[in-house]
Amino acid sequence: MMYLTRRERFCSAHRLFREEWDDKKNLEVFGKCSHKNWHGHNYFLYVTVKGKLNPETGFVVNIKRLSTIIKEKVIENLDHRNINIDVDFMQGKIASTENLAIGIWEQLKPSIEALGIELHCVKIQETENNFVEYFGN
Amino acid sequence: MMYLTRRERFCSAHRLFREEWDDKKNLEVFGKCSHKNWHGHNYFLYVTVKGKLNPETGFVVNIKRLSTIIKEKVIENLDHRNINIDVDFMQGKIASTENLAIGIWEQLKPSIEALGIELHCVKIQETENNFVEYFGN
Amino acid sequence: MMYLTRRERFCSAHRLFREEWDDKKNLEVFGKCSHKNWHGHNYFLYVTVKGKLNPETGFVVNIKRLSTIIKEKVIENLDHRNINIDVDFMQGKIASTENLAIGIWEQLKPSIEALGIELHCVKIQETENNFVEYFGN
Amino acid sequence: MMYLTRRERFCSAHRLFREEWDDKKNLEVFGKCSHKNWHGHNYFLYVTVKGKLNPETGFVVNIKRLSTIIKEKVIENLDHRNINIDVDFMQGKIASTENLAIGIWEQLKPSIEALGIELHCVKIQETENNFVEYFGN
Amino acid sequence: MMYLTRRERFCSAHRLFREEWDDKKNLEVFGKCSHKNWHGHNYFLYVTVKGKLNPETGFVVNIKRLSTIIKEKVIENLDHRNINIDVDFMQGKIASTENLAIGIWEQLKPSIEALGIELHCVKIQETENNFVEYFGN
Amino acid sequence: MMYLTRRERFCSAHRLFREEWDDKKNLEVFGKCSHKNWHGHNYFLYVTVKGKLNPETGFVVNIKRLSTIIKEKVIENLDHRNINIDVDFMQGKIASTENLAIGIWEQLKPSIEALGIELHCVKIQETENNFVEYFGN
Repeated sequence: MMYLTRRERFCSAHRLFREEWDDKKNLEVFGKCSHKNWHGHNYFLYVTVKGKLNPETGFVVNIKRLSTIIKEKVIENLDHRNINIDVDFMQGKIASTENLAIGIWEQLKPSIEALGIELHCVKIQETENNFVEYFGN
Repeated sequence: MMYLTRRERFCSAHRLFREEWDDKKNLEVFGKCSHKNWHGHNYFLYVTVKGKLNPETGFVVNIKRLSTIIKEKVIENLDHRNINIDVDFMQGKIASTENLAIGIWEQLKPSIEALGIELHCVKIQETENNFVEYFGN
Repeated sequence: MMYLTRRERFCSAHRLFREEWDDKKNLEVFGKCSHKNWHGHNYFLYVTVKGKLNPETGFVVNIKRLSTIIKEKVIENLDHRNINIDVDFMQGKIASTENLAIGIWEQLKPSIEALGIELHCVKIQETENNFVEYFGN
Repeated sequence: MMYLTRRERFCSAHRLFREEWDDKKNLEVFGKCSHKNWHGHNYFLYVTVKGKLNPETGFVVNIKRLSTIIKEKVIENLDHRNINIDVDFMQGKIASTENLAIGIWEQLKPSIEALGIELHCVKIQETENNFVEYFGN
Repeated sequence: MMYLTRRERFCSAHRLFREEWDDKKNLEVFGKCSHKNWHGHNYFLYVTVKGKLNPETGFVVNIKRLSTIIKEKVIENLDHRNINIDVDFMQGKIASTENLAIGIWEQLKPSIEALGIELHCVKIQETENNFVEYFGN
Repeated sequence: MMYLTRRERFCSAHRLFREEWDDKKNLEVFGKCSHKNWHGHNYFLYVTVKGKLNPETGFVVNIKRLSTIIKEKVIENLDHRNINIDVDFMQGKIASTENLAIGIWEQLKPSIEALGIELHCVKIQETENNFVEYFGN
């Protein structure tokens, strides 16, 4: 078993809030991340897949192909967009890094499994101090 | 003469567009940076000052004091905000990294000169691939 | 299960030595790390917790709260201090990165479990070339 | 159990291709990585070992000793060399990062186990966007 | 005057040697960089331009356009290539980082000046420990 | 003219204080950096030299030779040492990054000029947020 990781990047706006809460309550729970006019991040996305080596290529998977899948399924939807407003798979969810990781996992899983390999981990780095990792359950 | 640099960070939303242009023209000139629902970045700000060493402290300036000035004059206005909507010194300007550097320079210059040192450079890193530097003229 | 990691930093002095050994023996075993007048590092601490998402917030835990716990229980004791002399939980131990990781684990575990989540990993990066990870057993 | 990681670096040339395939087929499968006159990388190698702490030293293992083993068994063979031509343990294999990780694992395992500790992971970062991890099976 | 920098990357093979010198002499002068089967690097290229702000866009220059010029004039010639063998503008020169910087400067200068801005600096980072900067004279 | 930069690292203990001041005054001026039992840093040192290219080698200077000079004149005196106690060229000075830059400049200048090139800049990065640059006057 070999683990292969591809890093991609996206720059998005978002805000953390619950519509049914007033501004004061949102501020109390989410702090400055609830600011009503949005803020944003340079997100780093690390997608780790695992599988056996293809003896013909010495690859788990062609990393260009993996990169193309991540770009088509995830980056094109997120980059230079507003996570709360523009991203289908985040509708009705709080735009936390945790929920984003789950959403990205679900976007990627079918296409990656179709390659005959497993999706192992989705890691999202929001700032140099914060990141989350999701392993699918 | 010694040059001292302090790094600070801010996470903001913005978009590049001219109000008098329609969406098509904005897209043509500014690309995906003109997206109407905003996007955002983790900006890194590097403020370089220069001056003689204070013989009593061995400092150009106490870097805590420099950090406090940058936070009060710049970061508090920008961090977890929308550069186009929320930031006084960016009103009526395109929210480009270049204009942001000039705006930050003007915010910082009086307070830094009041310390008896010179403001030498404002550098803003928008992504790992892009940064600007402004030296005041 | 979601894994959330917070990075904090501390700048400390330390030295590696056993009191019952003479200088020659300490030098033999610990090399230049045994230098009697101390040396120091910018340590990077990565604390990883795991837990279920709170459906109300979309968080494993509010990362500000996690950061506050790490700062109160660990960073305030270590930052701009001497690990051998000043740090209660390192008394009687060799100030190796490994022992530091165990000490920090023990400092953090009760407060993190009190939040209803698990402490998963304490990682300490001592230099760009060396780091340790401790998972609690 | 404590996990200790040492980073080392090597700068090598390589190319990805199968001798029995013609240029067109190699280009189709391996893209520009098949270029006949070679290209190269600054590789970062992260070797993670695990073991119990030695109560006398507070170490899993003396990291200098680990570094020496990695340099003697791996870096000296790879650094400023051509992976396809010059490296014994890569002969007859495609010079993919995956195969390199397996090759390095096999080079390191006996010497590391001779220290009474386990080899846990070989991670190779080929570019800032791509890395592989191998855990020995 | 505003300074704008774009980072691009290329992965190349090279070797340092003089044809008229024998292996011993090349080894003496160039060390392991003279290895006959090549080695390689992940090079980081930083191109800094300077100019006045375009009042309509708030840009020195559209950074996409700058990136396209760098890719067309430089990266396509260098990336996944052998600097000694494959790169027109390096023929007859020692493939040192210094000569590479001069060669890249000359490749870029006409196209950048055609945009009405100045080329200020070409910086090449060969490893995390070594880089050169060239300002055109 | 070409500018060439070499990065070296050292891990040292230090403290900021004036002997003639009491603890309260030192704390007031130098904050936690005055802590009496020392603290420390991983310092990054960037030494920039400038000169014409040697037409035979394509080098400003052999970077190995530059590295050796920096190690012999500076790093061996600083690494795994206490800047206040152990370093000859820092005696009688406050161990600020600024004074360290001047001290290193003076240590390096004669040996670098003996190579027929100029010392251009000594940059010291103390933390990821703070650095100083000294150009010799």
